[in-house]
Amino acid sequence: MKLIDGKHVSEVLRKEIALQVSEWISESGRRPHLAAILVGTDGASQTYVNNKEKDCREVGIDSSVYRLSDSIGQQELLDCIKVINEDPGIDGLIVQLPLPSHIDEQVVIQNIDPSKDVDGFHPVNVGRMVLGLPTFLSATPAGILDLLKYYDISTRGKECVIIGRSNIVGRPLANLLSSKGDPGDCTVTLCHSRTLNLQTICRRADIIVTALGVPGFLKADMVKDDAVVIDVGITRVPAPGTKSGFRLAGDVDFDRVAPKCSYITPVPGGVGPMTRVSLLKNTLAAAKNNKNQSSL
Amino acid sequence: MKLIDGKHVSEVLRKEIALQVSEWISESGRRPHLAAILVGTDGASQTYVNNKEKDCREVGIDSSVYRLSDSIGQQELLDCIKVINEDPGIDGLIVQLPLPSHIDEQVVIQNIDPSKDVDGFHPVNVGRMVLGLPTFLSATPAGILDLLKYYDISTRGKECVIIGRSNIVGRPLANLLSSKGDPGDCTVTLCHSRTLNLQTICRRADIIVTALGVPGFLKADMVKDDAVVIDVGITRVPAPGTKSGFRLAGDVDFDRVAPKCSYITPVPGGVGPMTRVSLLKNTLAAAKNNKNQSSL
Repeated sequence: MKLIDGKHVSEVLRKEIALQVSEWISESGRRPHLAAILVGTDGASQTYVNNKEKDCREVGIDSSVYRLSDSIGQQELLDCIKVINEDPGIDGLIVQLPLPSHIDEQVVIQNIDPSKDVDGFHPVNVGRMVLGLPTFLSATPAGILDLLKYYDISTRGKECVIIGRSNIVGRPLANLLSSKGDPGDCTVTLCHSRTLNLQTICRRADIIVTALGVPGFLKADMVKDDAVVIDVGITRVPAPGTKSGFRLAGDVDFDRVAPKCSYITPVPGGVGPMTRVSLLKNTLAAAKNNKNQSSL
Repeated sequence: MKLIDGKHVSEVLRKEIALQVSEWISESGRRPHLAAILVGTDGASQTYVNNKEKDCREVGIDSSVYRLSDSIGQQELLDCIKVINEDPGIDGLIVQLPLPSHIDEQVVIQNIDPSKDVDGFHPVNVGRMVLGLPTFLSATPAGILDLLKYYDISTRGKECVIIGRSNIVGRPLANLLSSKGDPGDCTVTLCHSRTLNLQTICRRADIIVTALGVPGFLKADMVKDDAVVIDVGITRVPAPGTKSGFRLAGDVDFDRVAPKCSYITPVPGGVGPMTRVSLLKNTLAAAKNNKNQSSL
């Protein structure tokens, strides 16, 4: 069994990105710039945005955060997005989700200029991904592809079972892994809450990806020998006696599943650190494609 | 075994659409209008476009065909699309594919106004389909969903194997059938040229959809008892002694597979007739959503 070390891979990739950013700054005479909109004061959202700022700083990307009150109206938020869309000095824009319930997330996402949509959530970028056209891949699917690539895990012709059909993990990953390419060319089965006989289905998989958020869901008897297991779940579970009072748990019953696997991701330290890398890649790509760049 | 009669279902749906079109004309004071661009003189393409015109006429939709020489430059074609995009009297626009090799089909598709893209090929409409947002579903996947619905074939929790990952059939259908809904909520496995053990995979399917274009590919030993088989393949094979010299063959070894099935589509007369219905539905929907309608 080999542990997939997402922390290590993400550090390797960050160094590569930092180098590319530095080269691009020399050529273009300016720095890539990511804008983030944060609505409200949710603790987790604040942490995520702070981390994104820190990540940018470390690779040489400028960032700015627009902090808006959670009482902001939808139209005001859209006006803010419009200003950023039209700002030639900003290459990428993310709106930290979730948004307050009086705001329609889909409307917000659809108002982001697709060429600045470095989260890859705009329908046109989702469509481009599905059609195999160049686009911004969203964070988690991109991170998983990077892990498979780094460890040179063969995917062609492999049976891959993905558990969870969310629009940000399971569904895009199903489309990507079933497409032509490497990683890709898998025979993908997408499972979800309505799937019957999940144990049988999982047992036929060469590669299993769990994206459920149910700690310890994937048991050893659901995994065949030498499978590759990618655990996207990350849930806080109470851990009395620890400093924080909680620990992070994945969807996989790690201690029992790991001995059967050829490769497995731990939680934390597997997929998690990778999800922060694609935003940096996408922002650099957005800067390179920024058509208004010459007018700066 | 029950035969899925696509000819009959398509006639039922056409009558419904004709009624809806007539109601809408009474309310709006105008007729929906579909424009088709036909480049060159390919016989099959001409037939398809003629059929589409005929279909429109029969349900009360106006149509116009822009016939362009196959020596037309890409920019001239894009200019033609722009004129149609901006014409408030035209609700839907299709560009008959394939296009001559000097023209980039993706560029052409991406220049169609998404609100007139009644083929559902524009990336933003593909993305909306994948995300479960309202959009124009493309012809073949929509036709298959309509057949499943008409025959009240239960899909929830069923294992569905789709053979063929094309952007116009297999891939969109995989996304639709794995989404929440009815038809939907299937556990979908998407198979393709790199899939290994296809026989084993097919034998576990409650529903098999073949979209390969290889006559007689799906044999009886690949199908479990009581499966539902949907045959999208339609290939001309030589048939000496017939008037035309050919006959239409599906991907399924029909005579041997049919007795094992609970439901099966014939070729011709199964999926084929259904694919012509969704264009009419989409054109009516486009007319209803035509924002310039009030300025007419």
